[in-house]
Amino acid sequence: VAQGTVDRAYDQLVAEGYLSRGVGRGTFVRGVRPSTMRDVRRLPATAPAAAASRAGGQTPWARRVQLLDGYGAPSVRAFVANGPALDQFPVGLWARLVGRRLRRITSRDLLGAGPAGAPALREAVWEYVQAERGVRCTLDQVLIVAGVREALDLVSRVVLRPGDVAMLEDPGYRGARAVFAAHGARLLPTPVDAEGVVLPTRTRARPRIAYVTPAHQFPQGVHMSAARRLALLAWAHQRDTLIFEDDYDSEYRYRGRPLPALQGLDTAQRVCYAGSFSKVLYPGLRLGYLVVPPPLLDAVLATRSISTLHPPMLEQLVVAEFLADGHFHRHVRRMREIYAERHDALLDAARREWAGALEVSPIEAGLQTLGWLRDGVDVDALCARAARADITLESLEQWAIRPLARPGVQLGFATIAPADLRAGVTRLARVLEAPGLRGGS
Amino acid sequence: VAQGTVDRAYDQLVAEGYLSRGVGRGTFVRGVRPSTMRDVRRLPATAPAAAASRAGGQTPWARRVQLLDGYGAPSVRAFVANGPALDQFPVGLWARLVGRRLRRITSRDLLGAGPAGAPALREAVWEYVQAERGVRCTLDQVLIVAGVREALDLVSRVVLRPGDVAMLEDPGYRGARAVFAAHGARLLPTPVDAEGVVLPTRTRARPRIAYVTPAHQFPQGVHMSAARRLALLAWAHQRDTLIFEDDYDSEYRYRGRPLPALQGLDTAQRVCYAGSFSKVLYPGLRLGYLVVPPPLLDAVLATRSISTLHPPMLEQLVVAEFLADGHFHRHVRRMREIYAERHDALLDAARREWAGALEVSPIEAGLQTLGWLRDGVDVDALCARAARADITLESLEQWAIRPLARPGVQLGFATIAPADLRAGVTRLARVLEAPGLRGGS
Repeated sequence: VAQGTVDRAYDQLVAEGYLSRGVGRGTFVRGVRPSTMRDVRRLPATAPAAAASRAGGQTPWARRVQLLDGYGAPSVRAFVANGPALDQFPVGLWARLVGRRLRRITSRDLLGAGPAGAPALREAVWEYVQAERGVRCTLDQVLIVAGVREALDLVSRVVLRPGDVAMLEDPGYRGARAVFAAHGARLLPTPVDAEGVVLPTRTRARPRIAYVTPAHQFPQGVHMSAARRLALLAWAHQRDTLIFEDDYDSEYRYRGRPLPALQGLDTAQRVCYAGSFSKVLYPGLRLGYLVVPPPLLDAVLATRSISTLHPPMLEQLVVAEFLADGHFHRHVRRMREIYAERHDALLDAARREWAGALEVSPIEAGLQTLGWLRDGVDVDALCARAARADITLESLEQWAIRPLARPGVQLGFATIAPADLRAGVTRLARVLEAPGLRGGS
Repeated sequence: VAQGTVDRAYDQLVAEGYLSRGVGRGTFVRGVRPSTMRDVRRLPATAPAAAASRAGGQTPWARRVQLLDGYGAPSVRAFVANGPALDQFPVGLWARLVGRRLRRITSRDLLGAGPAGAPALREAVWEYVQAERGVRCTLDQVLIVAGVREALDLVSRVVLRPGDVAMLEDPGYRGARAVFAAHGARLLPTPVDAEGVVLPTRTRARPRIAYVTPAHQFPQGVHMSAARRLALLAWAHQRDTLIFEDDYDSEYRYRGRPLPALQGLDTAQRVCYAGSFSKVLYPGLRLGYLVVPPPLLDAVLATRSISTLHPPMLEQLVVAEFLADGHFHRHVRRMREIYAERHDALLDAARREWAGALEVSPIEAGLQTLGWLRDGVDVDALCARAARADITLESLEQWAIRPLARPGVQLGFATIAPADLRAGVTRLARVLEAPGLRGGS
């Protein structure tokens, strides 16, 4: 055996602590008996794991938190909802921008940023939300986040205590319900009418936080009227409630000009404003933004600094250029035309083929609408039969906390071409005409 | 005025809720008086913000959480610590890989993934930690995270209750202290000797979690001996403590083979294992990994699903290819040579020029070492004087909870070339020779 091999073996035994060596002292065997190694390996593999074995079992958080759906296999068929047309994403342009940005990357970019995110994207978002959405804030207040989920979770971590009341639209975004429930909030589900969320004036509850989607209520598609916005701000002021405005799908409006954000009306530092690039660009980008009222800012930034710190730099820098160079504006305009055509194709075909069986809500914005069924229709049976006809239907009940007045389904129109939408309408018409969908019959 | 302009104005007034319109009913003014708008604008801008105005003030979380440092301006000078050589990052190769991966991007990739992260990177990390680090786990247990911070925060959210005891190495990683303190844990700082963390056997405290850096203790640089590893596992078993293993800088070892991870010795599902790409690739990448023991997995995944869901897809997919194609291995080998040369340059010059004033610890791994000062030296004054000589020195006290036995400073050697390190040693030698650094003298 070569001397070098022996030396390396000794080095390794010293490194692992089996031998001890000192300059001028020689090398000694240390006090680890092989049996100790065996003893540890014999620790019962079925030993109660730390999470479950303490008196009292799991923590309250672990008991409350529930898995919120991520992204499954992308179904590209009628009537998948809550997604953009991924095949229309400008991958070639994106690749050029990424390459161009990487060629100019600096050590400063590679190093990262503070807990608010990359300065270039924060500035671009700051300009965008002021110019396009009427948000009023300083640059300090703008954080780049991983999406509306992270925005909601960050704010909830800072303001919610278990037992606090959290108001939310019902039916509404499942993510808000999941985040609030995980934080131990008592949920105050509130219906939505043609003007937006109905304010719960009869309860004495003082919600700590209220989640609303004023631009385009999810999933009903209505926008909140100016009167309701003012009433909401006054109501929140009386009850000392923080408003979380999810500016959901505000980019895709097919009639009228986009409504300015509720945040711009607020003068009492009472509105958190959040938006996402998931629908406008692609969901796997996991980038969005959060505008934090100044009194919450330190705690929100501190919370981010001990969790993710910030999203990866490269994608932030590319989105910043996409916004600054006008690509974003052109992309939204192009996609809006595509989606408007798809929306019209769905509604025209639906009026012809589903009359009396499935009434489609007119919408002004967004990537999906709702179909309302006749009372007594077994919506779960309908969804199951639709799946067998290669159609995705999801019951509105999945987004509801209280029982719905009328059964309904989500109808997405953004992911497939007009001809495929029309073919889907025809296939679903046959499913609707088949006997046996009335509950109890 | 053209008819179209009038129509659009009406549409907008309807959209904002000032007018009401029904088919066959005509258009009506609605009940929003301009004074209501003024009333809302008059809500006091100085109104106590929601976060601070409730009885009891802020939430316990908001009171506890403290800002943890992100990344400031990149100083590229002697003796910046905790960072890689950013100028050596292979930007050209990275740009080619990003471009290549984007050309093959699928709708599936654009859509995103579940809360564990991109499958391709999870698989690549799974192979890496098994082959290179001796980790024993199933693919299910592997999460891609934004770094060790997010890993620690995720695990803490699931297992820690306010008042629980959290053990941590002292001096040690500030991030662990910040995360545990934010979660309301009582800190149990524990010293480190030549074999790693000293187990607190005299206290009856049963820590809920213990943060350790067995591969390369931060900041002292020692690795945990095999004997200490076995003792730690047995100790954790007796006290029902979850171990969080931060496999910090395990890639950059200059002597001996890398030591396998502690996790691989654990048979009781008691070790969370985390690592980061921040130092090996670049900090702004914000990607790392977490191996979760099965009993904690559901709650950790659920927690991620209601927060960030997963890091952006593109960078995950590129890192997956970087690993799978062998670039990672080559990059680590190349950087290890560069860092070994810089390490030797620092130590050789330090022995010659700092003898008696600043004693440099020999290290086996990592990107920085420690310099020990004589008792009584005013370390803050030294750091301030060093800064005036264009040298970054950080007092070891910044990583310590209890008073240090001996004053010390961090000495990074990774970010600048050998000649610049030698010049820095000479400049600091002059600072050390100047009178007036002895405390109280």
